[in-house]
Amino acid sequence: MIITISREFGSGGRELGKRLSNVLEIPCYDKEIIQMIAEKQGFDEQYVSHISEKNLQAAYPRTIGCRFTMTPHPVTKQAVTIAVEQQKIIKTFAAQGDCIMIGRCADVILKEYNPFNIFVYADMDTKLKRCIERAPKGENLTPTELERKIREVDKERAKHREFYISAKENARSNYHLCINTSSIEIKKIVPVLAEYIKVWFEIRIENKARNV
Amino acid sequence: MIITISREFGSGGRELGKRLSNVLEIPCYDKEIIQMIAEKQGFDEQYVSHISEKNLQAAYPRTIGCRFTMTPHPVTKQAVTIAVEQQKIIKTFAAQGDCIMIGRCADVILKEYNPFNIFVYADMDTKLKRCIERAPKGENLTPTELERKIREVDKERAKHREFYISAKENARSNYHLCINTSSIEIKKIVPVLAEYIKVWFEIRIENKARNV
Repeated sequence: MIITISREFGSGGRELGKRLSNVLEIPCYDKEIIQMIAEKQGFDEQYVSHISEKNLQAAYPRTIGCRFTMTPHPVTKQAVTIAVEQQKIIKTFAAQGDCIMIGRCADVILKEYNPFNIFVYADMDTKLKRCIERAPKGENLTPTELERKIREVDKERAKHREFYISAKENARSNYHLCINTSSIEIKKIVPVLAEYIKVWFEIRIENKARNV
Repeated sequence: MIITISREFGSGGRELGKRLSNVLEIPCYDKEIIQMIAEKQGFDEQYVSHISEKNLQAAYPRTIGCRFTMTPHPVTKQAVTIAVEQQKIIKTFAAQGDCIMIGRCADVILKEYNPFNIFVYADMDTKLKRCIERAPKGENLTPTELERKIREVDKERAKHREFYISAKENARSNYHLCINTSSIEIKKIVPVLAEYIKVWFEIRIENKARNV
């Protein structure tokens, strides 16, 4: 039972994952991945977190339409190192057994495990409210600045995702359930969502037994 | 409790609606809408069904970029008549109480009721399998022809939808839950889905009481 959660920034995907983890009694990996990369590569955790869902396309030398091959900037080179390390760690965690993975294209990286892939999204008002309530200490963004930040993070994540999966494939078809968390308390939907996931895995086991 | 189901052709949205209707014990409207239009307007049911989710843009006279105003074709004029009638009937059914509406942009038409909007989709293999199993008598399409038909119906529905809602708004944001029915038996997920919907409506009632 491997569950992946992709999400819009501020939609509550992480909370959903942590609560599902409690109900299903399986580990949930999120910051743990960052911590392991930071430790292994000797980078600062904050830095890895910042860079781990950035656009990776920019990290590759552009040769077409350029007179000279442009070598990648050291920061983007590190982004690739981190992405490679991230993949390894995600696969290691998955190999250990049932778990929930937050973000980091785990749904694509772990395709061979046939995980249950959730996408979490919400309207902008809900995301703004959530971000304001949970703003890190010292971050005093205005709603306009916050909205810009939300859009930027999502844009970077989408570009990062394109490194693993083409934009055409990258539609809802990769997800088994897309959940709109607008104006709902996540803790209230988690128990019934856990039941839905259990049923889905039961069907999959039955199909396998019948060779469907 | 008004539930709307939008769906890809062949993904099992109608089956999902009918089964939900049994579990929740509320009526499900699908063909009933077609029947009422046919009766009221004196059209053939088959014809109404064929035309009721067609592209309506084509029904309006094009004046921009044309030297002469083009008058709409009588068939497309009828498509508009049917669309207007459809809206009226959908609103009449909704005013009668709890129900499930299949397709026909009911999620947009009934916005004021704040319905629970589901989108049902599946991979092409699942949709092909489903369509072959349920093909009307005498329809002997090859898988390639069937795939073309599926894509065409979805394209027409998308265009029909643009009559009610702009393509930009017409993303997943309008749906509360998007369900991928690939390789799963719909009857097995319906009981837990019904529970999810009940919880969602409970949260909404609580929010209303707290004025959120």
